[in-house]
Amino acid sequence: MEQHLDIHIERREAKKTKPAQDQLGFGIHFTDHMFMMDYTTEIGWHHARIVPYQPLVMDPAAKVFHYGQTVFEGLKAYKTEDRRILLFRPQKNMQRLNRSNERLSIPLINESFALDALKQLISIDQEWIPSGSGTSLYIRPFVIATQPELIASPSSHFQFIIIMSPVGPYYAEGLNPVKIFVESTSVRAVIGGMGEAKTAANYAASLMAQEDAKHNGYAQVLWLDGVHHKYIEEVGSMNVFFKIKGIVYTPALKGSILDGITRDSILQLLQHWNIPVVSGDISIQKVYEASREGTLEEAFGTGTAAVISPIGELHWHGQNLVIQNGQTGELSNKLYQTLTGIQNGSDPDLFHWMTEVNMR
Amino acid sequence: MEQHLDIHIERREAKKTKPAQDQLGFGIHFTDHMFMMDYTTEIGWHHARIVPYQPLVMDPAAKVFHYGQTVFEGLKAYKTEDRRILLFRPQKNMQRLNRSNERLSIPLINESFALDALKQLISIDQEWIPSGSGTSLYIRPFVIATQPELIASPSSHFQFIIIMSPVGPYYAEGLNPVKIFVESTSVRAVIGGMGEAKTAANYAASLMAQEDAKHNGYAQVLWLDGVHHKYIEEVGSMNVFFKIKGIVYTPALKGSILDGITRDSILQLLQHWNIPVVSGDISIQKVYEASREGTLEEAFGTGTAAVISPIGELHWHGQNLVIQNGQTGELSNKLYQTLTGIQNGSDPDLFHWMTEVNMR
Repeated sequence: MEQHLDIHIERREAKKTKPAQDQLGFGIHFTDHMFMMDYTTEIGWHHARIVPYQPLVMDPAAKVFHYGQTVFEGLKAYKTEDRRILLFRPQKNMQRLNRSNERLSIPLINESFALDALKQLISIDQEWIPSGSGTSLYIRPFVIATQPELIASPSSHFQFIIIMSPVGPYYAEGLNPVKIFVESTSVRAVIGGMGEAKTAANYAASLMAQEDAKHNGYAQVLWLDGVHHKYIEEVGSMNVFFKIKGIVYTPALKGSILDGITRDSILQLLQHWNIPVVSGDISIQKVYEASREGTLEEAFGTGTAAVISPIGELHWHGQNLVIQNGQTGELSNKLYQTLTGIQNGSDPDLFHWMTEVNMR
Repeated sequence: MEQHLDIHIERREAKKTKPAQDQLGFGIHFTDHMFMMDYTTEIGWHHARIVPYQPLVMDPAAKVFHYGQTVFEGLKAYKTEDRRILLFRPQKNMQRLNRSNERLSIPLINESFALDALKQLISIDQEWIPSGSGTSLYIRPFVIATQPELIASPSSHFQFIIIMSPVGPYYAEGLNPVKIFVESTSVRAVIGGMGEAKTAANYAASLMAQEDAKHNGYAQVLWLDGVHHKYIEEVGSMNVFFKIKGIVYTPALKGSILDGITRDSILQLLQHWNIPVVSGDISIQKVYEASREGTLEEAFGTGTAAVISPIGELHWHGQNLVIQNGQTGELSNKLYQTLTGIQNGSDPDLFHWMTEVNMR
């Protein structure tokens, strides 16, 4: 895995027009440049380069199209009021990228090299980081299997690519609690599967149920476990938390859910605030009973895109469980303000989470 | 779903050099042309064309790379001794393609149009169909999500593509029983997941365990169910059959395994031969006990690539279950000879399985 690679840089001649700050959306616009690196079994990872954002030229038999050998990451860069550029716990993303690589039989990537490459890419495209409230630069590292061969076995060729997209605030008008459908049939992932890896398969598995939920007026799906259809796993593509009688519960990492970096950060914040927190099995029945007893105080999803996504209502087996009268709870709000404050540099970095990108 | 599409044909100017008949391998060489068709939400499927085999030009943000929205099929064309071209039950593949499309939130494709397009493509590249014993033209239709957007939702743009590869005999020296590792930890798919769909995710999920098995000297993995880790599902990427005391058992289609076309054909053949067959739950314990009692007579995988793949040995929890002294069983051999005889046109087409491609 040792890599001492120079990064070849080819700058774009004519820069693209940047979207208006209020028209950013999510993952639609991409910056002027991208990072790429190739892998072959013979050479290992090589040919690291920053090049103009451009289409990939792919053999139609490339294994990624047929056998889904691919992993990705998602993280954000923020521009502070004093115009520094900060990354939120990027080392954790690179570590998780390699854990995903292991699960998908993809060769490991030197994590510090990948982070250096990302910093160079950000520095080159720094003008693309938006500075409006709630905006950021969303960063998508990913690996794809490129060997053109139809045998269902690990590829001999890969590409590691980083693309970046300026994104708007997730909530245009402050935190907005959403209605969630509890999915009892379709399953996102199961223990022994790939639920812990950040890989295309888990997202593909979730498309149908999410579309059904959307057609019925729900923002997302709450996933139950694939064995008992009973224990809560994730909400949409986020980790999920419930506050019941002053105690915060979140599903434990047992192999079928993502080890979210926002999830981990929230656990640290809750401990710091001396709020009791339990990482373990949570049955939907328990949540239902808490709701009936009036002790279900808050519920929210957590992830890089939204940071905190309050849940205002759960629909389960024909029952509507309304949470906090559909309003954002106090803890949800405090977590959101604290995390985004640390991320955008306006609050002190208590836990040494932020990594500054040097401008060049 | 109504489509009345002309297929635009652009022929290659200089034909590629064809590989030697004894150097075909599987899915390595591709023919001169490919079929492509585009989808947008606004227009539906359009721009059907046969063009020279060529790289795809893909935005790095295309959803297939990130969220695995893709399905595929696999079937074969055979050249008979009297130089006709036959397809084996291609309507079944197109039907299954659409069932996979539904599971993956991909728009349906007109099945008879797709089959017509395939026949035109085969006709244009007919010189590529090998005629040596056991050879065929492997056909890979697939759909990929091409919309460049990082939101995890169904794509608004797709491409449907058919590529073709001349393939050699799966067994260079006749049927060759293989050693199989019974996987007790890793899971291919679970009920509620996508195991019934022919989609990249199921193959991605299997790579790690298959690699581990290979490193330990096993050809493939036998998958158990994801709920109990007890009931047999598939072997490698094939359906699986066991003959115990004269009765043939195969796992039932309950949502987590592929509805194999070879599987279905074998069920029809067995019924035709009045051989008792049970499609239901088969525990690995039952197979183990049959082996100890000496009543495990045969075991084999079935699929388009190998047709029949006899299992000579199963390794489960430190035990080696040797089947038929590691030799090919009588029924396995009879099924293989009968199916391949029908497919390559040397035996009568008893069940009206074969579709002839008209030369133009």
